[in-house]
Amino acid sequence: MLIGKVIGTVVASKKDPELEGLKLLLVKGADVDGNVSGPVLVAADSVGAGVGEIVLYAAGSSARQTVMTKDRPVDHVIMAIVDSIAVNGQPRYEKDA
Amino acid sequence: MLIGKVIGTVVASKKDPELEGLKLLLVKGADVDGNVSGPVLVAADSVGAGVGEIVLYAAGSSARQTVMTKDRPVDHVIMAIVDSIAVNGQPRYEKDA
Amino acid sequence: MLIGKVIGTVVASKKDPELEGLKLLLVKGADVDGNVSGPVLVAADSVGAGVGEIVLYAAGSSARQTVMTKDRPVDHVIMAIVDSIAVNGQPRYEKDA
Amino acid sequence: MLIGKVIGTVVASKKDPELEGLKLLLVKGADVDGNVSGPVLVAADSVGAGVGEIVLYAAGSSARQTVMTKDRPVDHVIMAIVDSIAVNGQPRYEKDA
Amino acid sequence: MLIGKVIGTVVASKKDPELEGLKLLLVKGADVDGNVSGPVLVAADSVGAGVGEIVLYAAGSSARQTVMTKDRPVDHVIMAIVDSIAVNGQPRYEKDA
Repeated sequence: MLIGKVIGTVVASKKDPELEGLKLLLVKGADVDGNVSGPVLVAADSVGAGVGEIVLYAAGSSARQTVMTKDRPVDHVIMAIVDSIAVNGQPRYEKDA
Repeated sequence: MLIGKVIGTVVASKKDPELEGLKLLLVKGADVDGNVSGPVLVAADSVGAGVGEIVLYAAGSSARQTVMTKDRPVDHVIMAIVDSIAVNGQPRYEKDA
Repeated sequence: MLIGKVIGTVVASKKDPELEGLKLLLVKGADVDGNVSGPVLVAADSVGAGVGEIVLYAAGSSARQTVMTKDRPVDHVIMAIVDSIAVNGQPRYEKDA
Repeated sequence: MLIGKVIGTVVASKKDPELEGLKLLLVKGADVDGNVSGPVLVAADSVGAGVGEIVLYAAGSSARQTVMTKDRPVDHVIMAIVDSIAVNGQPRYEKDA
Repeated sequence: MLIGKVIGTVVASKKDPELEGLKLLLVKGADVDGNVSGPVLVAADSVGAGVGEIVLYAAGSSARQTVMTKDRPVDHVIMAIVDSIAVNGQPRYEKDA
């Protein structure tokens, strides 16, 4: 999985029927401190993530292994909201810190 | 999924039989403002997208999860036409704006 | 799918039995004008492509969806020969032009 | 598989139910000498790896082939702890060296 | 598939049980002349390749389509040893040349 930050939302009314009901969030890659860096992508949300949160997202076929995304044409899914990240035992990111 | 802009079309008469009937569109990566940037690829169209539209496309095996692309040798599919993109609550792209 | 140009051939007599009978072609990425750019890879041919032709190739598990590549350890397949590419309605590449 | 070094840990209490019980480790790409270089990612641990160890990780659908990750929305898994790496017969990395 | 050169070996005694019995080789990307360039990765060997040989390797789920790697957490496999590479009809690489 990769670390990302939810930075926005995407609305698409004309879409494949299998996408109905999925929330599509704009995610930008983030580093271990929670600072954005890297590419922007659009992920289906399976955990109720909100704008500004640091999340983990999975790509590829693994993105279809959550209940919400099973058998859907989804190649990125947010499947966890990060509470904390530590590097070599030192805290680097804490949610609501 | 990634954001892209449909920039053209590709015609291929000699192809794997499983591709018959699929519309192949030329897509270039786009940013949150709808400006093109990034690679060019060829995606099967599952939503009736046209040249100039901002779309979402899925890659890999997820590209075979739409009705039109099931079990076909397709690794990129357009599965949504973007109406709007907002970053931190601010509109960045609006269709027909 | 990505646009590529067939630039050569690869011979490999010692290989996994599942590869027997597949033609392996050397492909280099190409742009919308048919000029080479990008990486070199080796793809199985499912459409009778020849050196010098502009083709579409699929990567990943989608490369195993043609009749010739089903269940084989193949991660790139040529599944179409490009006749023409147009960008914003303007022709950019024409086969035999 | 790619060579990586376990550099930290990630805690996420709100996550897809399929992730329960998996240990999530922060991994940074490493070279043949065991020096870090390359991207940071989050992998599920299937072998009891600890911070500071050089490991092999698999990506994509292959990451779901271990007993711990079967059918889970996991796209990176640590599936081996490296004892030694040799290049052209010369040792380059030795665990606990 | 991509062209690579086998440059070394990796030993890992603590690993997922599904990896038992697989030989893990260090592979570095190579160009059409057989010169190394590009990333280093670790691939399972399905063809008896040795250090110094130019090989083809497959990535992703296709890496699990050989007899040796079926259903194993392997995302790169060597599935052919290259005899020769020709570009536009001109030989560029010959084994044992």
